[in-house]
Amino acid sequence: MWRATPLTLFPAMFPGPLGLSLAGDGLARGLWACDPYDIRLHGLGRHRTVDDTPAGGGAGMVMRADVLAAAIDAAAPAGDPRPRLLMSPRGRPLDQGRVRDLARGPGVVVLCGRFEGVDERVIAARDLEEVSLGDFVLSGGEVACLALLDACVRLLPGIMGKELSGEEESFEGGLLEYPHYTRPRDFEGREIPAVLLGGDHGRVAAWRRAEARRITGERRPDLLDRRG
Amino acid sequence: MWRATPLTLFPAMFPGPLGLSLAGDGLARGLWACDPYDIRLHGLGRHRTVDDTPAGGGAGMVMRADVLAAAIDAAAPAGDPRPRLLMSPRGRPLDQGRVRDLARGPGVVVLCGRFEGVDERVIAARDLEEVSLGDFVLSGGEVACLALLDACVRLLPGIMGKELSGEEESFEGGLLEYPHYTRPRDFEGREIPAVLLGGDHGRVAAWRRAEARRITGERRPDLLDRRG
Repeated sequence: MWRATPLTLFPAMFPGPLGLSLAGDGLARGLWACDPYDIRLHGLGRHRTVDDTPAGGGAGMVMRADVLAAAIDAAAPAGDPRPRLLMSPRGRPLDQGRVRDLARGPGVVVLCGRFEGVDERVIAARDLEEVSLGDFVLSGGEVACLALLDACVRLLPGIMGKELSGEEESFEGGLLEYPHYTRPRDFEGREIPAVLLGGDHGRVAAWRRAEARRITGERRPDLLDRRG
Repeated sequence: MWRATPLTLFPAMFPGPLGLSLAGDGLARGLWACDPYDIRLHGLGRHRTVDDTPAGGGAGMVMRADVLAAAIDAAAPAGDPRPRLLMSPRGRPLDQGRVRDLARGPGVVVLCGRFEGVDERVIAARDLEEVSLGDFVLSGGEVACLALLDACVRLLPGIMGKELSGEEESFEGGLLEYPHYTRPRDFEGREIPAVLLGGDHGRVAAWRRAEARRITGERRPDLLDRRG
């Protein structure tokens, strides 16, 4: 079973939204597991402190390497085959290729940072893979982790109906999706493109490919460059 | 007050993780509001249907333009000054600049798509701004919306302590953050860089700038290009 272990100061945030809908059904049916691990268990002293002021000065607090290492070692002991991720805007931007790889594996251990960041040394010492959701700053790694888990879980066997599993084609071929239409045929004077109503499957497929290419070119020429 | 209205088939997903921690404190203190609106209220017929099969054929279901338009018109009537967003991998990738703009405004109305997508015509007819979290596919827009709200809310006045509000500098200047360190001085034989312990604020600042530039150059040369 695909198993996610978020390391967090807010275990109550999990499974959160993933307790509902597709992911929630899969959780209830035992198709995946979400076992958040409370970093605070390894906090120091009477107040279970997990952070301290930044060396060199500056705003905010930094999560201690020793506390995080102890939490990682307890939640994912040596021999646990799962990749260890750290959600961080400094990481490699998440893409559908990485999501597919993670979904094919045994699961993930995800360190969710808070405050100003985590002590750099634990990243090297515990071989954490920094993963970024995008070029923006969140209040912590938890919501980023939820997004990563959602993306992975929907690809697990049995989560989506068979007819839906083709949906992952969104980024297959590296293009943005073509536009979708459904009933009614006329919406406030706007019509469904005639080609989609003609019943010619070849023409429909060609139109969709052309639209995907047009939209990608207009909005994300960087994706076309990447395809070479 | 900054007001978020997610339009969703799963209103119970909100505020979810944003009911805890910084965002949750802010919610309790009335610094922002999260009022999810149930799209199903405008579903058709006895089963309150919100979707139908795609014109032209293919897998999955498409959310109907008429149902979504009715939900948008009810949740954000003409005159509501808030931008209307649609979370979608076809949108413009979210970045910290857009987050800052949204946080300065009156709030957001966010349509959370499900299934294969939404009928293209409602995007144009209701002037929806498509926003992407990144080049991956989620099971719906809800978790993406939570990430967007988290990013915005932490910038609202009063949410973070004064000393922390500089944290948004992460992407200021378009660079990734420099590495952080805190006690202990020795962690498993790994030392805090000496410059950070020397007490020379000028040298610390210069080291951090150089590290931010080095890390950005190694990991995200595209960000350096964008700065020009």
